[in-house]
Amino acid sequence: MNPKIASFLATTPATPCLVLDLDVVAANFAALRHALPLARIFYAVKANPAPPILRRLSGLGACFDAASLPEIEACLSAGALAADISFGNTVKKPAAIAAAHAHGVPLFAFDSREELEKIAVHAPGSQVYCRIAVDNIGAEWPLSKKFGTSLARARGLMLAAPGLGLQPHGLSFHVGSQQTGTAAYELAIAQVATLFTDLKNHGLDLKMLNLGGGFPVRYDQDVPDSAHFATEIMRAMTTHFGNDLPEMLIEPGRAIVGDAGLIAAEVVLVCQRLEADPRRWVYLDIGRYGGLAETEGEAIRYPITAATASGPSGPVVLAGPSCDGVDILYEKSPYELPLALQSGQRLLIHNTGAYVTSYASQNFNGFTPLAEHYL
Amino acid sequence: MNPKIASFLATTPATPCLVLDLDVVAANFAALRHALPLARIFYAVKANPAPPILRRLSGLGACFDAASLPEIEACLSAGALAADISFGNTVKKPAAIAAAHAHGVPLFAFDSREELEKIAVHAPGSQVYCRIAVDNIGAEWPLSKKFGTSLARARGLMLAAPGLGLQPHGLSFHVGSQQTGTAAYELAIAQVATLFTDLKNHGLDLKMLNLGGGFPVRYDQDVPDSAHFATEIMRAMTTHFGNDLPEMLIEPGRAIVGDAGLIAAEVVLVCQRLEADPRRWVYLDIGRYGGLAETEGEAIRYPITAATASGPSGPVVLAGPSCDGVDILYEKSPYELPLALQSGQRLLIHNTGAYVTSYASQNFNGFTPLAEHYL
Repeated sequence: MNPKIASFLATTPATPCLVLDLDVVAANFAALRHALPLARIFYAVKANPAPPILRRLSGLGACFDAASLPEIEACLSAGALAADISFGNTVKKPAAIAAAHAHGVPLFAFDSREELEKIAVHAPGSQVYCRIAVDNIGAEWPLSKKFGTSLARARGLMLAAPGLGLQPHGLSFHVGSQQTGTAAYELAIAQVATLFTDLKNHGLDLKMLNLGGGFPVRYDQDVPDSAHFATEIMRAMTTHFGNDLPEMLIEPGRAIVGDAGLIAAEVVLVCQRLEADPRRWVYLDIGRYGGLAETEGEAIRYPITAATASGPSGPVVLAGPSCDGVDILYEKSPYELPLALQSGQRLLIHNTGAYVTSYASQNFNGFTPLAEHYL
Repeated sequence: MNPKIASFLATTPATPCLVLDLDVVAANFAALRHALPLARIFYAVKANPAPPILRRLSGLGACFDAASLPEIEACLSAGALAADISFGNTVKKPAAIAAAHAHGVPLFAFDSREELEKIAVHAPGSQVYCRIAVDNIGAEWPLSKKFGTSLARARGLMLAAPGLGLQPHGLSFHVGSQQTGTAAYELAIAQVATLFTDLKNHGLDLKMLNLGGGFPVRYDQDVPDSAHFATEIMRAMTTHFGNDLPEMLIEPGRAIVGDAGLIAAEVVLVCQRLEADPRRWVYLDIGRYGGLAETEGEAIRYPITAATASGPSGPVVLAGPSCDGVDILYEKSPYELPLALQSGQRLLIHNTGAYVTSYASQNFNGFTPLAEHYL
């Protein structure tokens, strides 16, 4: 285990808590910058908006992808320049657009005519980029039909932007979160490249391609490292753009913070539930509503180990502490824990630095959100 | 619309917000007491733990079903007597059991030997009741296999309780939340009655049957009223217990607060997403992570109306404001809203007094939890 985290855990902090090593955040950022030196890295704040993370990344020269006005203001408070912030949510209230514009945020996402018109009114003269809907093949947390538009509609909207007083700056796509393959990038880059060419032939010279986020973290399966993604992304970019590469943006969140932290949890109860099922049920003091929302459908399968119990293992079902029957973490996935495990002992839920703390419910069943420790 | 809520909404409070009429809470409590005069009513605090609700119900003589130590302490702060509180979660930390016992809480739930032993150590001499797993047929938010034990195991545990220094007080079951039929009650009452008789024949005279919660609220379908449930429950009780009725407890949550409140939300964007799908996507400033967690799987389908827009309607998909692709409220359920609906206008999400505020994430995507107004 990470030695800084191990020595902090030796102080037996109250559970549940997230313990995160900021040096790992910095190392992940450096590895991505090394792997994709041509790309500007916009950290996806929603993955973990903790001020110590934002301050550390800001000090390293990161840019920031914000989903809301409070996220923009958190970045500014952490020392980020407004010029280095993108307002990446394609669904924004007019007041939030106006406030971001007043702060000096230069770059706004959209994927519909209505949103483009809102940006034109409330952030006149801004740079805008249009999000294209692409195939999420290979993603473990895909993004569905909620975002993005077609190439044909994007073409019309980008051509309309100058007439609305906006700067048509670029295009974006998102291949889905926890994306474990490179095929989706290759498909998406090929598609958007045709629109770059098409628009250039109509006098519109787009400057930027935002490749989104989605770079994976190792949970229960090995995943390719960032260098592998970088190689394949650059190969696709060169194939489809030749020497005329646009500025590239990436929006990693999970890949920056996911493996930097773990959750320490207490076992509240161990029991066998049904005569017909030999598995033990292990109830923790954190569940789906305490932050582990991405266990919905057992989509994200965190590695889980016993902190102290050892010896032979057997199969378990893992559940949260609330009275809600849906608050089950893993019932189908084949988890095993020591047969000697008892209530009062601790488990470690690994690689939980991303998409945990901010999901936690404010007080479901009376439980307070997990504590956070940044080392 | 409820006139108190209507006049509050006329002040245009910031959205998203819950607006709840405490007089409706009181009327729902009175109706249940009238329908089931033999039952003690333990309000399920987890449905909505707001202090104004707890104070109002405490003043009316309600008892309280608590899922955690913080819920117990909220009830005590609201004026409840410890003697009127049940610690109904079958999964509790030892420290929480000890603190509840120290506060004077007399009654503890369990459904496993491990939990019974924890209660014996940390709340010696307490009254305990064992939760039986029963069929959740007819429930729209069923409680799965997470809770409850078999009649055979319950029998052994109740017989063991006196030897552990505990008072074997009764049995409980739960037919599932938003239970729209009475068949599950009839089946469950018949089952537990056999165990009452069996234990009596072994010298153990149980005093109490806890019928749990689950009474439904009208969402998209009409549901039977509490008088109908009461009639069928009493018929089953008399059939299976004769004149020797145990003390009856019920634990309504949704039925007390569900229809007492509504959420006012703002439309952030209206757009047509895919060429092939004529439905408009309507994005609100509240979604699955802002409190509407029970829309998972479209299980609970709240009535939704436009606050001001009118005229002919057409089909819509409803989604939340976050960048998460899973944050979609209704994609398959056939919702319709006015064709004239535009961003900036308001929607009302009805019957959202239960299981909303406490589910809200603390700051997912930077959004603060919905405001709450109790009238």
